[in-house]
Amino acid sequence: MKRIEIINGPNLNLTGRREPEIYGTTTMEEYIDSLRKRFPKVTIGYFQSNIEGELVSHIQEVGFESDGLIINCGGYSHTSVAIHDAVKAVTAPAIEVHISNIFAREEFRHNSLLSSACRGFIAGLGLEGYALALQALTETD
Amino acid sequence: MKRIEIINGPNLNLTGRREPEIYGTTTMEEYIDSLRKRFPKVTIGYFQSNIEGELVSHIQEVGFESDGLIINCGGYSHTSVAIHDAVKAVTAPAIEVHISNIFAREEFRHNSLLSSACRGFIAGLGLEGYALALQALTETD
Amino acid sequence: MKRIEIINGPNLNLTGRREPEIYGTTTMEEYIDSLRKRFPKVTIGYFQSNIEGELVSHIQEVGFESDGLIINCGGYSHTSVAIHDAVKAVTAPAIEVHISNIFAREEFRHNSLLSSACRGFIAGLGLEGYALALQALTETD
Amino acid sequence: MKRIEIINGPNLNLTGRREPEIYGTTTMEEYIDSLRKRFPKVTIGYFQSNIEGELVSHIQEVGFESDGLIINCGGYSHTSVAIHDAVKAVTAPAIEVHISNIFAREEFRHNSLLSSACRGFIAGLGLEGYALALQALTETD
Amino acid sequence: MKRIEIINGPNLNLTGRREPEIYGTTTMEEYIDSLRKRFPKVTIGYFQSNIEGELVSHIQEVGFESDGLIINCGGYSHTSVAIHDAVKAVTAPAIEVHISNIFAREEFRHNSLLSSACRGFIAGLGLEGYALALQALTETD
Amino acid sequence: MKRIEIINGPNLNLTGRREPEIYGTTTMEEYIDSLRKRFPKVTIGYFQSNIEGELVSHIQEVGFESDGLIINCGGYSHTSVAIHDAVKAVTAPAIEVHISNIFAREEFRHNSLLSSACRGFIAGLGLEGYALALQALTETD
Amino acid sequence: MKRIEIINGPNLNLTGRREPEIYGTTTMEEYIDSLRKRFPKVTIGYFQSNIEGELVSHIQEVGFESDGLIINCGGYSHTSVAIHDAVKAVTAPAIEVHISNIFAREEFRHNSLLSSACRGFIAGLGLEGYALALQALTETD
Amino acid sequence: MKRIEIINGPNLNLTGRREPEIYGTTTMEEYIDSLRKRFPKVTIGYFQSNIEGELVSHIQEVGFESDGLIINCGGYSHTSVAIHDAVKAVTAPAIEVHISNIFAREEFRHNSLLSSACRGFIAGLGLEGYALALQALTETD
Amino acid sequence: MKRIEIINGPNLNLTGRREPEIYGTTTMEEYIDSLRKRFPKVTIGYFQSNIEGELVSHIQEVGFESDGLIINCGGYSHTSVAIHDAVKAVTAPAIEVHISNIFAREEFRHNSLLSSACRGFIAGLGLEGYALALQALTETD
Amino acid sequence: MKRIEIINGPNLNLTGRREPEIYGTTTMEEYIDSLRKRFPKVTIGYFQSNIEGELVSHIQEVGFESDGLIINCGGYSHTSVAIHDAVKAVTAPAIEVHISNIFAREEFRHNSLLSSACRGFIAGLGLEGYALALQALTETD
Amino acid sequence: MKRIEIINGPNLNLTGRREPEIYGTTTMEEYIDSLRKRFPKVTIGYFQSNIEGELVSHIQEVGFESDGLIINCGGYSHTSVAIHDAVKAVTAPAIEVHISNIFAREEFRHNSLLSSACRGFIAGLGLEGYALALQALTETD
Amino acid sequence: MKRIEIINGPNLNLTGRREPEIYGTTTMEEYIDSLRKRFPKVTIGYFQSNIEGELVSHIQEVGFESDGLIINCGGYSHTSVAIHDAVKAVTAPAIEVHISNIFAREEFRHNSLLSSACRGFIAGLGLEGYALALQALTETD
Repeated sequence: MKRIEIINGPNLNLTGRREPEIYGTTTMEEYIDSLRKRFPKVTIGYFQSNIEGELVSHIQEVGFESDGLIINCGGYSHTSVAIHDAVKAVTAPAIEVHISNIFAREEFRHNSLLSSACRGFIAGLGLEGYALALQALTETD
Repeated sequence: MKRIEIINGPNLNLTGRREPEIYGTTTMEEYIDSLRKRFPKVTIGYFQSNIEGELVSHIQEVGFESDGLIINCGGYSHTSVAIHDAVKAVTAPAIEVHISNIFAREEFRHNSLLSSACRGFIAGLGLEGYALALQALTETD
Repeated sequence: MKRIEIINGPNLNLTGRREPEIYGTTTMEEYIDSLRKRFPKVTIGYFQSNIEGELVSHIQEVGFESDGLIINCGGYSHTSVAIHDAVKAVTAPAIEVHISNIFAREEFRHNSLLSSACRGFIAGLGLEGYALALQALTETD
Repeated sequence: MKRIEIINGPNLNLTGRREPEIYGTTTMEEYIDSLRKRFPKVTIGYFQSNIEGELVSHIQEVGFESDGLIINCGGYSHTSVAIHDAVKAVTAPAIEVHISNIFAREEFRHNSLLSSACRGFIAGLGLEGYALALQALTETD
Repeated sequence: MKRIEIINGPNLNLTGRREPEIYGTTTMEEYIDSLRKRFPKVTIGYFQSNIEGELVSHIQEVGFESDGLIINCGGYSHTSVAIHDAVKAVTAPAIEVHISNIFAREEFRHNSLLSSACRGFIAGLGLEGYALALQALTETD
Repeated sequence: MKRIEIINGPNLNLTGRREPEIYGTTTMEEYIDSLRKRFPKVTIGYFQSNIEGELVSHIQEVGFESDGLIINCGGYSHTSVAIHDAVKAVTAPAIEVHISNIFAREEFRHNSLLSSACRGFIAGLGLEGYALALQALTETD
Repeated sequence: MKRIEIINGPNLNLTGRREPEIYGTTTMEEYIDSLRKRFPKVTIGYFQSNIEGELVSHIQEVGFESDGLIINCGGYSHTSVAIHDAVKAVTAPAIEVHISNIFAREEFRHNSLLSSACRGFIAGLGLEGYALALQALTETD
Repeated sequence: MKRIEIINGPNLNLTGRREPEIYGTTTMEEYIDSLRKRFPKVTIGYFQSNIEGELVSHIQEVGFESDGLIINCGGYSHTSVAIHDAVKAVTAPAIEVHISNIFAREEFRHNSLLSSACRGFIAGLGLEGYALALQALTETD
Repeated sequence: MKRIEIINGPNLNLTGRREPEIYGTTTMEEYIDSLRKRFPKVTIGYFQSNIEGELVSHIQEVGFESDGLIINCGGYSHTSVAIHDAVKAVTAPAIEVHISNIFAREEFRHNSLLSSACRGFIAGLGLEGYALALQALTETD
Repeated sequence: MKRIEIINGPNLNLTGRREPEIYGTTTMEEYIDSLRKRFPKVTIGYFQSNIEGELVSHIQEVGFESDGLIINCGGYSHTSVAIHDAVKAVTAPAIEVHISNIFAREEFRHNSLLSSACRGFIAGLGLEGYALALQALTETD
Repeated sequence: MKRIEIINGPNLNLTGRREPEIYGTTTMEEYIDSLRKRFPKVTIGYFQSNIEGELVSHIQEVGFESDGLIINCGGYSHTSVAIHDAVKAVTAPAIEVHISNIFAREEFRHNSLLSSACRGFIAGLGLEGYALALQALTETD
Repeated sequence: MKRIEIINGPNLNLTGRREPEIYGTTTMEEYIDSLRKRFPKVTIGYFQSNIEGELVSHIQEVGFESDGLIINCGGYSHTSVAIHDAVKAVTAPAIEVHISNIFAREEFRHNSLLSSACRGFIAGLGLEGYALALQALTETD
């Protein structure tokens, strides 16, 4: 059985409450539950923190043993060399996910420092982006 | 039955032949065939052209009636206002796909002019990016 | 009798259908007809293509013999050195026209590579911009 | 009867005297007279000042009651937020006019801060640019 | 009794009339009157001009003898070295005020050349920004 | 009774000890006490953290129920998309405060990523900036 | 016998007619004929198109089997990622040629997106640049 | 007898009063008097204004008949296209003078928009810069 | 006896495990032990955190009493104003250390926001950089 | 008999020794000898210096009397205004040569300050670039 | 008697021969001679070198004992930190001179790295710029 | 016995005389002597030149046979591609040293073109930086 870790960054704990026209009304907890049901053969870990360094620590902890990381580090995506380095340092392949299409929003969201450390990138497909990333990490090979 | 159009830009006709370490060895034709088998309930159109304006014309032709566009316009992604405008002009939602992780390649591939006209964006997941986009366009709702 | 060529670039074939709040509801064909009626003493040629190189070729074909070019090359305005060069290469004076006020839209529409090769520039006056350009090319002298 | 205000900025009082190869030899006064004859059904106001703030004040004074403004604010076009704000603040639609093709001149003339506050933009068509703007403001509708 | 000078730049004479959703419906004159009532122990001078150089002259005239300047030089804030120099040259401390939050508006309003010459900066708090500045200049010490 | 939360970021716990020529000698604790006395009708919450993510979490916790936030996130002001997002996500209006005039200091302090998410901005008025912000949040309406 | 393909982009079909002070008066056809006479041991293919995508297609067609490509893609040199990619994708070595010294002309001609995909680069030596490139591709080894 | 016009811009009326460590303690009036004594064979006109447009007007008035202009337009040097245009429009040669070495001061003083319209440029030599300019304009030829 | 604090930022806890071709195979703990043996007359404190704010707090705690700080804040070096401010706020001199030569790696590692707040900077000398910094802080004077 | 001067800049004396995978194993002296044999009708001068100013002096010395200059000024190509000026000052036409394709190497090698002062430019064709330049300078006309 | 050193950089030895429309036809030697006659009370040293480092050395040699330096370091003005540092290191005041108006020439001549190390700056006044600088250094005080 | 070469660039011959508050009062000769005493087992070569090309030549001469280079090329650090290339071309490892903390000085000193060609970098530790570099080159391994 494969083990995939979903790692969410700042403000994603508000999903379902915050700006629903952008992020929808489902909470992350509800969504992770539904994912576990839809992917019964995958052990799905879930971690959220608003603290950049805790995201770094968590990636270090799970990144050597899991089969893949799905990372949406929110606002840190655009500025964090530390998370970039953590993903580069560990062995599990990572896919960056963004719920909204960051390229159609404010200028400062258009680039991601994280993306060059990841294998893939999914944006703008809502919460389903996580499901697609899961699929990509578990079905390819 | 839903109708989705896959539209490929310049040099993607070489997929399977060109730089296999980046793009793999499956040809697009083989891959489209496999997609049609995996998604029997979807009518999958396929169009490739090396000519920017033909991509514009094709998007105009299919973009008002299909249920979704999956566009990988290759090198034009980074410079084409015309394709951006075509996607904006039509009514079908579009997902931009890149086989490789463009953010981990040369500087001039890091931004896409097309992305702000699309609903979503998938990169770096190989040919499977098309399948994921298909799923996103056909399963969400 | 003077001969003026109107040359339209990508997506302008959708005029009347596409984003009517920006471009209005009259089609280009209807509008060209009305121009021919309003300017009976001018032979008005009309050409539209979504393909950058066809615009180049057409400018080469008509640009040595006509008395003026009216060019709206849409999305290519912002990136095409080739069309700039074609206009520079031919002998007829050219006026660049944009239906909308490109300076009040997205950042990437604010500059035109074409403009420095033309005699004049008209933007934001709707389809009437073509009529004004016609007038400028036929009445001045 | 419609009322249109023509507003000229710095150094345009020298028109006819200054760099005639760029600006021609007709003075603005002569040209305004000719416009009044050609457009007998329009009340054409004319104002020129070399002082940025007087242009702002004049736009405020005439901009709520006239049917359109034709503004060539010369060197202030490229730097004046104040004139931009004045045009935005009043209710009459404005067309920006430049006698020469500013895009084919020095780099610092290539952008206009004013243009995004106006409805339209005409450049490079000599003094006739004012006539075309007049026409656009009085005939459309 | 302290003497504070409020100095307003271009278009602020339209306050109450212009874009009320941004600037409100109270006129500056009404507001200055209310300030004089609320701050009976302060002599409040008021000056408005649309002309950059008159603002410079006024700052020179009152800036050596008053106890503080409250300056909202509107559109000149973003481009005026001359006003910056005038504020630097005089002895009274200055506070820059903006009625709206300039950082949440167009890119060209995001920086102020004036701010580095002032002691403080207040933006986005509506007309009350002037009252707060008054308080800061009269109550601190 | 209104409830206002004052939220301070990194190094502001050193206020009174650190670079007193810039930040003065009063400690934040002493100052908050004095504020509570001066504003007896307002419940003033106070929180300080050096950790960006804790600031995000605290804004989330108090930002839906309080009547206003006063935020000085120090060095994070210039780089934190995460705090920007948190302020945008909650419902209480926020005012950004800086003790010093950041525009007169090093280049990297001249812009604030936070400011466009706030209602207002006060800088350079020393600790009194907090009092002015309090007043703005409690007295306007 | 070696096979070399000369590939010309937009407006080069006008060579001999267009701006003779820059490009000379010999037509490309005449020049290619003279090359064939001077290099009797080389099969020289010649292709010209104004259409970017046709250049891409032609490079794909001849680029796997010929012994070298000589490419002058004119105005597309400065903007075409698609042609860059085509040259990178094929196996024949390429030399980029420009008739004029692009570094001594307008700013927008100073860089070439194509050059990093080619083996060599020749500019400013007139039509003889093609002959030199031919020599470099056929004589070295 | 030659006629030279000295034209000073904003804040230079404060010379002798303002920041004496940069500008010295002699007033401009005293200095102009001393110049007139030192250059008895030259008619020296003097004009100062804080208003950009008045500088433009004055340059227009004296610039066609005098034998040379000495212009220190202070803070307008860095931003005024209008003054640049006025100097370009008139026939008298101009020398730009700055009392201080603008290249050793704030970044925003390092370039002058005016300089490319003038014949020469003198900075950093105190008030004597005017004398040197006078000499250059009257003695050369 | 002197007291020096070594402070390591994100991912440096992986030293010895992560990308050994860049960072070597010795762990930080082993290395610190060896340093304590080589510098028996120095009390060497050691602190590592992945959390930016904890680094700030630690610098505040030890920075007023120790004789020197040796700081390698990893990925935060390039973006952290907060750590810069903390180092500036405390009294101990600091030396910034990087194990690898950051100038020979990715563009985003080429500048350090921290460096201008430190006395010195050592990079590219492997773990020995810490020893050299220790020496510099304890032997100079 | 024509006289051509080959002028090499810094580090080109190491050719054949330095980074042979980029520059090959032939020394410049060997290569110049072979050129003299291949071009018996041309007097070929050769000069190398690591010193920018000696290159300037040599260009001055030979540049008025020789029939052409072939210049590879190595690292100075990207920064030397002085060599640019020397080439501009003399009468012999110059061709800039680079052994490697500078456009495919580090960013700081992508532009040449020298190129706009030369007639032509050859790069990436190895030592043969010198032969091609020789041919271009001696055979054309 | 005062001692002033005139120091000329690369290509200024060609003055009188090179581009006479910019630099005139008098040689530097003739001009220095005329200066010595016009300034009989000043010992005028003269040094020219095309080598940046020799200019540095010469500034070091004469810069501690002479009463002033007049430096025109030609092409090195725009790039030389070394000459900047030499001028800063010595005690004699320096005036930078340029024969032509560098601000009206190519973009890369518009800034001078040297200027911030000098007391003053004179450009565009031909060889007379040296005389004016001499005067400024010997007469002021 | 190891052989290390210390190579100093422009103005470092003034060390001890120039700006002592930045560079101290010890001369380089005195300091090199002290180094030779402190490192009796190392043959320490010393070379200084103000001439960029002599630095290049010296690096070429000693760089293939010595065991390490310690290079402080002063003002050339920020602009010299030639020295970068020389260091890259030779086989000895190099450490770049700066006496002062270049990151805390003027903007144009913040980057070093040399650094990416070196193994390590030491700045801000005064003359002791050379000793530390010596140690790093002789003790590691």
